[in-house]
Amino acid sequence: MKKIGIHGSTGSIGTQALKIIKNNNFKVSYLSAYSNSDLLIKQAKEFHPHSICIVDETKVNVLKEKLNSIDIEILSGHDGLKELSSRDDIDLMLNALVGYSGMIHTYLAAKNGIDIALANKESLVVGGQIIKNEISKSKSNLFPVDSEHSAIWQCLEGENINDVKKLILTGSGGPFRSLKKSKFYKITKDDALKHPNWSMGSKITIDSATMMNKGLEVIEAYWLFDIEIDKIEIVVHPQSIIHSLVEFIDNSIKAQIGKPSMTIPIHYALNYPGRFINKNEKFDFYKNPNLTFEKPDMDKFKCIKLAYQAIKSGDSYPIVLNVANDMCVNYFLNDKIEFLDIPFYIEEALNNHEAIKINQIDSIFNIVKQTKNYITKKVGI
Amino acid sequence: MKKIGIHGSTGSIGTQALKIIKNNNFKVSYLSAYSNSDLLIKQAKEFHPHSICIVDETKVNVLKEKLNSIDIEILSGHDGLKELSSRDDIDLMLNALVGYSGMIHTYLAAKNGIDIALANKESLVVGGQIIKNEISKSKSNLFPVDSEHSAIWQCLEGENINDVKKLILTGSGGPFRSLKKSKFYKITKDDALKHPNWSMGSKITIDSATMMNKGLEVIEAYWLFDIEIDKIEIVVHPQSIIHSLVEFIDNSIKAQIGKPSMTIPIHYALNYPGRFINKNEKFDFYKNPNLTFEKPDMDKFKCIKLAYQAIKSGDSYPIVLNVANDMCVNYFLNDKIEFLDIPFYIEEALNNHEAIKINQIDSIFNIVKQTKNYITKKVGI
Repeated sequence: MKKIGIHGSTGSIGTQALKIIKNNNFKVSYLSAYSNSDLLIKQAKEFHPHSICIVDETKVNVLKEKLNSIDIEILSGHDGLKELSSRDDIDLMLNALVGYSGMIHTYLAAKNGIDIALANKESLVVGGQIIKNEISKSKSNLFPVDSEHSAIWQCLEGENINDVKKLILTGSGGPFRSLKKSKFYKITKDDALKHPNWSMGSKITIDSATMMNKGLEVIEAYWLFDIEIDKIEIVVHPQSIIHSLVEFIDNSIKAQIGKPSMTIPIHYALNYPGRFINKNEKFDFYKNPNLTFEKPDMDKFKCIKLAYQAIKSGDSYPIVLNVANDMCVNYFLNDKIEFLDIPFYIEEALNNHEAIKINQIDSIFNIVKQTKNYITKKVGI
Repeated sequence: MKKIGIHGSTGSIGTQALKIIKNNNFKVSYLSAYSNSDLLIKQAKEFHPHSICIVDETKVNVLKEKLNSIDIEILSGHDGLKELSSRDDIDLMLNALVGYSGMIHTYLAAKNGIDIALANKESLVVGGQIIKNEISKSKSNLFPVDSEHSAIWQCLEGENINDVKKLILTGSGGPFRSLKKSKFYKITKDDALKHPNWSMGSKITIDSATMMNKGLEVIEAYWLFDIEIDKIEIVVHPQSIIHSLVEFIDNSIKAQIGKPSMTIPIHYALNYPGRFINKNEKFDFYKNPNLTFEKPDMDKFKCIKLAYQAIKSGDSYPIVLNVANDMCVNYFLNDKIEFLDIPFYIEEALNNHEAIKINQIDSIFNIVKQTKNYITKKVGI
């Protein structure tokens, strides 16, 4: 039985993962959540983990009370999360935390030689080099849990990364794919929150509307697959059926195909190297008889350009990109700035940043702080 | 250096293979051709094989005369071919012979433990069981050289065949994909020889028009990949860009994509397990922005149904299917029968056949003879 620890068990990825685990051969070692104590209690009763952790300290007493009759360790706060992440008695950690602070948990697991099913893409965007160093020292593995990187990972199975000419990330193009650039200044929050194919949280839905999500995925792919940045491309594929592709030096291309759903990537990452029966989400060609492809418009979707710029500049730039984007999306969701201000302020932050070598976790948090200050001041709120 | 022997070196696959070999690290051990002595002489001078063979015995003297100054062994006739196929001092045989008689050479190579790059699909259609027996005894390998099976093979790399739910062969649907069934009786030879995507010999172009080519490919896939026949499906994909797909038990699908060209499958089979740079035929999504899928119409294309019927019946039935089809296509190309007569006579032959266990090569030739007699008599020519 594979022993698994899940961070973010009450979120969208976490709950889907637990559904999969229920039907397969896993022992849940720990679960953690930010503040959804009700669901965490329910999950604790169903999956009998050794430990649970809730970040929101005000909820600890409820947990203790409701789980009184069960033999379970209850932790809380960010320190509780870190304690779980430092455990080396599990086989796999699913990191489904939201935001760059999830990075530290990927780092801790990597340090301990624990394999990581990674749904927290910020881990690699802000901590790519440091995490890769730990992975290579401890010989643990990173298993991507998102549709694009899972697709590439599946296409690379049995292949040699040196035979790869290009990794091709597909993207739906978001809700503004066909909107003229001249109309972008009119985009409202409601417009931006309507994603054509995927139902996701609001932060990632805005990232999809600006196409920053593809930019972040390019950076994630760079670290996951050890490949030159110029070998990573984006193709717009509005149907979200081909989840990504790999082009080889002999001009053969492999693609992974399926319904736009997270169950396949979660399934694959949890069960790897095996595949197990997935009862939902069978893809039907005859219901999707038409697949189309377009070039991404980097003038309209400047965030893509900025992401390439950040990873090419290297060092601390991707951290600036990530933090500036987090803040701008948040400001946009709170009606503080306009849609087009998102790339504007990110670009400002990148252009006004001076590279710092990232050798340890603390340097990351310094850059985060610095960027937060910069954006707050710049936006003037 | 990989030592390779090529049967059918002057044909379409053979000449493309030699172009690839020229740019890579191979030693050509032998070449053979049916009757194109001029090209065989040219190839002998360029690639310096140890031996060559021409099937058409009337051409031997020309070869001997023109290659007088070179140290080369010149063989002829079917016995000459067999002698080459029996050699065990090569690493790989490319069998690009045309027709079921190519099967004996696959068999001989398999017996000797030689890996076979197989472009002669009849080998498996008529001799599947016998060849598989030899392969499993000698531990040699079959590497498919056609776009569909190469696609499946590539998608299966690093995967476990037990995790496969379905092999999905794509087919263009041929020139009559959109023609109503009620108009099929009007189809002429010229109509049938116009293939929308692929430029091929006339036999295979007709097989594509009747969709028997997909039927034969289903049988080939059955033997190549050791999978139940009910797990092999056909999807019509008119653009011929997705060359075939594999669906896994977790509902993930992998596909291989590229230009409709034989260079990738030849390249892959010759270089396996490596991939090497292929300078031509790069696929461009933006020039192929639209990929479509349809269900094959088995009523219109009865040959598909007949092929499934033959392989499900097993034993000698696929031989009957193959031989009856060869003859009917030939009759059609010679204006002796109509387009719709092709499936008609094949069905007659299958329905009037009684299963015979195929334990040795000779039993295959007996069935061939028997089917030839049946069709000749039936067609009444």
